[in-house]
Amino acid sequence: MALDIQNILSDNAKSMRRSAIRDLLSVANRPEVISFAGGFPNPATFPVEDLKVIMQEVLEEESTSALQYGPTEGNGKLREILAERYRAQGLEITKDNILITTSSQQAIDLTSRIFISPGDTIVCGLPSYLGALQSFWSYQANPIGITKDEELEIVVKALIATGKKPKFIYTIPDFQNPSGVTMNVEKRKMVLDVAEKYDLLVIEDSPYREIRFEGEHQPLLYSMNNQRVMLFGTLSKTVLPGFRIGWVIAPEEIIDRLVVAKQSSDLCAPVFDQAVVARYFQKGLFDKNLSKTIDLYRNKRNHMISCFEKYMPKGVEWTNPEGGLFLFVTLPEGYDTRELFDVAIKENVAFVIGEAFHCDGSGKNTLRINFSFMDQERTEEGVKRLAKAIDEMLNKS
Amino acid sequence: MALDIQNILSDNAKSMRRSAIRDLLSVANRPEVISFAGGFPNPATFPVEDLKVIMQEVLEEESTSALQYGPTEGNGKLREILAERYRAQGLEITKDNILITTSSQQAIDLTSRIFISPGDTIVCGLPSYLGALQSFWSYQANPIGITKDEELEIVVKALIATGKKPKFIYTIPDFQNPSGVTMNVEKRKMVLDVAEKYDLLVIEDSPYREIRFEGEHQPLLYSMNNQRVMLFGTLSKTVLPGFRIGWVIAPEEIIDRLVVAKQSSDLCAPVFDQAVVARYFQKGLFDKNLSKTIDLYRNKRNHMISCFEKYMPKGVEWTNPEGGLFLFVTLPEGYDTRELFDVAIKENVAFVIGEAFHCDGSGKNTLRINFSFMDQERTEEGVKRLAKAIDEMLNKS
Repeated sequence: MALDIQNILSDNAKSMRRSAIRDLLSVANRPEVISFAGGFPNPATFPVEDLKVIMQEVLEEESTSALQYGPTEGNGKLREILAERYRAQGLEITKDNILITTSSQQAIDLTSRIFISPGDTIVCGLPSYLGALQSFWSYQANPIGITKDEELEIVVKALIATGKKPKFIYTIPDFQNPSGVTMNVEKRKMVLDVAEKYDLLVIEDSPYREIRFEGEHQPLLYSMNNQRVMLFGTLSKTVLPGFRIGWVIAPEEIIDRLVVAKQSSDLCAPVFDQAVVARYFQKGLFDKNLSKTIDLYRNKRNHMISCFEKYMPKGVEWTNPEGGLFLFVTLPEGYDTRELFDVAIKENVAFVIGEAFHCDGSGKNTLRINFSFMDQERTEEGVKRLAKAIDEMLNKS
Repeated sequence: MALDIQNILSDNAKSMRRSAIRDLLSVANRPEVISFAGGFPNPATFPVEDLKVIMQEVLEEESTSALQYGPTEGNGKLREILAERYRAQGLEITKDNILITTSSQQAIDLTSRIFISPGDTIVCGLPSYLGALQSFWSYQANPIGITKDEELEIVVKALIATGKKPKFIYTIPDFQNPSGVTMNVEKRKMVLDVAEKYDLLVIEDSPYREIRFEGEHQPLLYSMNNQRVMLFGTLSKTVLPGFRIGWVIAPEEIIDRLVVAKQSSDLCAPVFDQAVVARYFQKGLFDKNLSKTIDLYRNKRNHMISCFEKYMPKGVEWTNPEGGLFLFVTLPEGYDTRELFDVAIKENVAFVIGEAFHCDGSGKNTLRINFSFMDQERTEEGVKRLAKAIDEMLNKS
């Protein structure tokens, strides 16, 4: 007799949503498809030669600890280094405020795990990072999206009035995924004021902050309030994603809870990779590589924008972000990028439908374009194909 | 105003239990303490020189993919290799039955996540692996322990009769942690018969199986029933724990659900580490290294047993396992190893209290001793100190 899996699934499993990206992208993985879909960094930014040297050093000098189990909190040296770097950005923290996670996706997941009970509400952006929404849903949360920061207090008040006070506000203040928008300091203050007034926790998810092409850094939310902000960082966009190293910065009491949750999740983050990364920082290689990455991605953004200007039919709008990895594109009202996707895939070009980033199913006329991964030539060819598909769609109706 | 964390914790967080090992061991980390507590493999078994070569190769030949995001299912080559290895042990599987996890702890965690709803029951051993219990508790499950395999059907029937049919049976058939016991083929058949009769899922957690000092391998549960068994494996004991690489083998329908859960947990397992491990297997280095590891640990077990025979006071009993990393020690009834721990730590020797492995709080007169990590000399000195502490305790009362 075969087991009936459906019959024994948990309530959590039933509320998990398969990634829309994932399913759409199974088609996009064909080599003839030019994919602007993933959030992949460019392999040209991977510090391969430096890693060759560092890995030999780690194996030579610290294999006994680097290949062994490590502390759940993470590599002590790496936590010191990160604490130092964030102190320079105005955070009042020590390494005890830092937990190394297995990617910043795990930071989101563990946070959901310790705070979300079934039916809880979360306030997030419309649009917002799909992987965060997936995590919230997997714990049976109800994410409520706001289109403008100004709506925050109204929504929070309404939720409180209906007995559904949000567990936290989830934000990506720098080069938001997918919109590319960065919150200015006034908006940051406003979010923190609302959090303070209504006694709320704020998540500052910050994978792109370091990748700024122009303009001034805005202060980290955590530097403006170290009592009720959790800050998530990652190496996946700035150095490489293949190590799966991220971190949480939070008040110690929260770190303490996350550590217990992490123990039963995977005991500790990849230990060897952490040792390599600690040395990578110590040698000053991070900043050197980052500035080259920024130059590369600035060029790629410029190129992408110029291709958009050259090929896109009238009525299509797009952002011009000061950093990050994505353009966010808006078609005229009434068009559905899910339909566009089918046309585009026949033209051998792929993107992510904007709807996937909208927790309420809105944003049907939007899509996200990654500019960090593809080379110049294929970028132009891909935009040309995409423009053709859009043109076809706009003129059909 | 500071945030009141307690006030916003999830129901899950409230049911999480801090690892007893962890807290006890914060004392045991002092260098003067001889610790038999952790489940640490011996660093002498880490294939450092081979890794030096392989890591250079990976960086030279496949850095573009090995440093990038990887598929949630895991490295395709590694999954092929594992499928092939398990087919040789009688499993009817393909790579589509395999998900690479970030350690086998994550295999336990994701399985709990997709199957456990609050209040669900699980049947496990008394004692059983602490990390699994922690994961079950973190999803608000109620693990029910059985002392002998013969009790399984009685307990399952009783649970079903009270409307609490267990979600799965959790077993460690080879060199059980912490008891060291291996189930013979008759007992394996019995477990599967009960599972079949009452339509239950069976977890076969198998971190130690390959480390067999003598005697014959018993068939894997999965090889006896591929419809309702999930098999968990890991590299942490056989090669090294610092990579955090484990896997789940299961019917495809379950793998599919685990993949969705893993997406929102950490997207994918460490990608570089997987590429290294795939090459490590391909070069035939796994089996070569494993046979040296087995020889080393056999000697260490023999030495530990001879020290126990030499120093332990009368009334103390211990197992002589055919494999794995642990001895399980029993004091006369009525003694509490939590008290012993305090005495032992003054003598600068540490172990894990057996109670931590008993989901019902029993096993107070037991303790677990690791023999894989410590060198010969310190093992003897440690056992001498432990024997002294036990002697003191037995003679005090």
